[in-house]
Amino acid sequence: MADESKKASSFLKVDWNGLTSEAVGPAGLSPDDLASLKGPLAAALKDVWNQRKKGKLAFWDLSADRRLAQESKKLAAWGRKKFQDAVVLGIGGSALGASAIFTALKPLNHNRLSDKKRGWPRLWVADNVDPEGFAALLETLDPETTIFNVISKSGATAETMSQFMIAYDWLRKRLKKPTLADHLLVTTDPESGVLRKIVEAKGLLAWPVPQAVGGRFSVLSAVGLVPLALVGVDVAGLLEGAAAAAADGLKPPASNKAAILAGLNWLMAAKKGRGSLVLVPYADSLAKVADWFNQLWNESLGKAHKLDGSPNQAGQTALKALGVTDQHSQLQTWMEGPQDKTVMFLGVEEFRTDLTIPAIFKEYEALAYLGGQTLGSLLASELKGTAQALTENGRPNLSLSLPAVTPQAVGYLIQTLEMATAISGSLYGVDPLDQPGVELGKKFTYGLMGRAGFDDFLSRYEQGSRARKKYILP
Amino acid sequence: MADESKKASSFLKVDWNGLTSEAVGPAGLSPDDLASLKGPLAAALKDVWNQRKKGKLAFWDLSADRRLAQESKKLAAWGRKKFQDAVVLGIGGSALGASAIFTALKPLNHNRLSDKKRGWPRLWVADNVDPEGFAALLETLDPETTIFNVISKSGATAETMSQFMIAYDWLRKRLKKPTLADHLLVTTDPESGVLRKIVEAKGLLAWPVPQAVGGRFSVLSAVGLVPLALVGVDVAGLLEGAAAAAADGLKPPASNKAAILAGLNWLMAAKKGRGSLVLVPYADSLAKVADWFNQLWNESLGKAHKLDGSPNQAGQTALKALGVTDQHSQLQTWMEGPQDKTVMFLGVEEFRTDLTIPAIFKEYEALAYLGGQTLGSLLASELKGTAQALTENGRPNLSLSLPAVTPQAVGYLIQTLEMATAISGSLYGVDPLDQPGVELGKKFTYGLMGRAGFDDFLSRYEQGSRARKKYILP
Repeated sequence: MADESKKASSFLKVDWNGLTSEAVGPAGLSPDDLASLKGPLAAALKDVWNQRKKGKLAFWDLSADRRLAQESKKLAAWGRKKFQDAVVLGIGGSALGASAIFTALKPLNHNRLSDKKRGWPRLWVADNVDPEGFAALLETLDPETTIFNVISKSGATAETMSQFMIAYDWLRKRLKKPTLADHLLVTTDPESGVLRKIVEAKGLLAWPVPQAVGGRFSVLSAVGLVPLALVGVDVAGLLEGAAAAAADGLKPPASNKAAILAGLNWLMAAKKGRGSLVLVPYADSLAKVADWFNQLWNESLGKAHKLDGSPNQAGQTALKALGVTDQHSQLQTWMEGPQDKTVMFLGVEEFRTDLTIPAIFKEYEALAYLGGQTLGSLLASELKGTAQALTENGRPNLSLSLPAVTPQAVGYLIQTLEMATAISGSLYGVDPLDQPGVELGKKFTYGLMGRAGFDDFLSRYEQGSRARKKYILP
Repeated sequence: MADESKKASSFLKVDWNGLTSEAVGPAGLSPDDLASLKGPLAAALKDVWNQRKKGKLAFWDLSADRRLAQESKKLAAWGRKKFQDAVVLGIGGSALGASAIFTALKPLNHNRLSDKKRGWPRLWVADNVDPEGFAALLETLDPETTIFNVISKSGATAETMSQFMIAYDWLRKRLKKPTLADHLLVTTDPESGVLRKIVEAKGLLAWPVPQAVGGRFSVLSAVGLVPLALVGVDVAGLLEGAAAAAADGLKPPASNKAAILAGLNWLMAAKKGRGSLVLVPYADSLAKVADWFNQLWNESLGKAHKLDGSPNQAGQTALKALGVTDQHSQLQTWMEGPQDKTVMFLGVEEFRTDLTIPAIFKEYEALAYLGGQTLGSLLASELKGTAQALTENGRPNLSLSLPAVTPQAVGYLIQTLEMATAISGSLYGVDPLDQPGVELGKKFTYGLMGRAGFDDFLSRYEQGSRARKKYILP
């Protein structure tokens, strides 16, 4: 056990020197600030551990159930022989996790490789209802070798169900034999909802979304693991890393990475006015982890009210970026723009492949230093240089790093960020599991689309619309 | 002329009802606020027009020179016969514009279509130095049918030049005949810099970056037009739209869309504490316009100092999102999170293709309303519903919309946002054309990479590094 936890702790390094006043001056956390964190953080951890015991944070222990890994492996072996394309129909929490982990763990050109080189189906995550985008995807698919995985817990998500209805019809009209059930996998609530009814009526293959797990915390359930297994991701390795993190989440605050990430960012937001948190992976493979984290942090912590009903004055918006690319796009504003951000780097110590810059053009000073070095070392130097520049400029920053992008390390990272989000919820005093702010817009959409029972919202929209004629340049 | 300006004005609609206190209450702009804008906005416009006359804002008139459109068309006709892949090697302003317009104006599956259906080379924009990403790209290219367009104004951009050196060597070793000059197009300063010297030494084909045009304002120069022409984008149409916008930028403030966008967002930042501006296109085709705008706005306006040397207290950070996708990710925080954002929608009135949701599953109330409607109408309803929900919730928002994603409308949009950025610079009193905050990080990178003359920065980094040992969990 001692050995395992030792190994586990090396999946993720957390370095927050750049958040301290010693490093960045007044924008940073003083020793007193850091000391002030101890009480609240211990209390938040206790609160979260308690909620977990009561079954409210079921995401915490998804990795304990390895049956899913075994079952999805069987599914994958079946699918590998039959399909060249796997398409997730899902949005938000039903899409972002699979997308992030697919990008992290499969070759970055996976979808472009020949069938033979690829060895597994391509993966497409259709998470918008743009007709041009969805039509462009369907155009390149062969129904005979395509499997759709439709994911919606409620079975009523307008976007996903619209895609599902189109895909259903598309398969029905194009398949040579009427074997729809072989081309549709459903991931939904195990008992209730429209999709569950359709599964039963049509005899479709279905996987459950565990009941106490919300969309944005669901990637390590069937929601993420089924599509990932279908394209050959090592889901057992992912769960192994996640399990190590889940165990580390039970450690005392000072050695608990999830707690430290939650506590530090909460201090920066609540005490230092840093209402934005930029996550900047320095690896193409981790680019979409920032998208996934964006939802996790923003939906969980962007709340108008605390649990006790009082207004929530603090909060933090997650922003996404990619290193080094965004040094040429966003860095200027991190360095000199509004003093409202913490920058959180996410680095990788060793790439799975590297490229050496050839020692040519030695006659030009501006190029000579590059020859013979690797792109990996350039990327690493840029991360270090940028962090140092932010620090010297008094701009708070912290750094996460993975030893390498392995299934274990990615599982550890995902699980740690999920736990950090739950702990943050407790520190802010908000419910990290709900998203009340998205409901009103849905109701207006239903009204505009003519759904029964939403006429009032149509009228309300039209009334608002009439009032909005004044300030327009056509 | 009257007719042309009438047509032009319909390329972009601007609706800012949702920014007013009438719509969103105290978070919005009161009639007094709006009245207070008149003086500063008139002065800023005058200032910008003056700078333009002095040749400092050369981007304004790029569309006046149509020779480039003709020449790039010739290049495209040549390239179309020879190449299946065109690769941009560039970063920041050398990458984002082409990427945005390519995504807007070519089919969303362009790179996946068969050679015959596609009719033009695929386009890849390599804007990072991640070794895994760049190796994955090279792996799928055939050197015989690949053309690289290396873009760097200075010719010293470490990232782009590293890619260039690798690509140069890759071609040299793999081409059957040593015809490198046929596979390398260079876009760089017309007179100075390392790349210009290499062009001359190696006899490469080169295009100029106009001297008074900075990277992020350069998409309508050879920087963007050459790669776009190579893949069959109608660059003449783009320039036509841009020219209409350039003319509209000379109108008085009240009918000048660029000025209105600049003025309103400046008021929201400077008077209403809205330090973030979220751009949310509701179209997959416009997703990357948000990335391009991100650089434009952030590098131009995120400045520590005003032109007079005094500290710049205001500023605004651009955030990117995509509708409807991010309703399931970011909307919660726009509705209930920190009161620091303005949301700017970017809609499309008519899609180039639409998909009808089949009228199936009528027996389920939660799905019945969808059948028979189109994805396009769902997307449009979601935009309207989300804007109405934000408005009712007192969250300021404004809406841009294009009649359709045509070359003309995209050119108009791009040009308008560039002019708005320049006008904003004047309102904030900052230089919108420089980016001093990115230099320090580069110097540390040079130091770490062993470039001659940057030893001091290596020592300074190491000293900083030694001090940063205290707050780490390994």
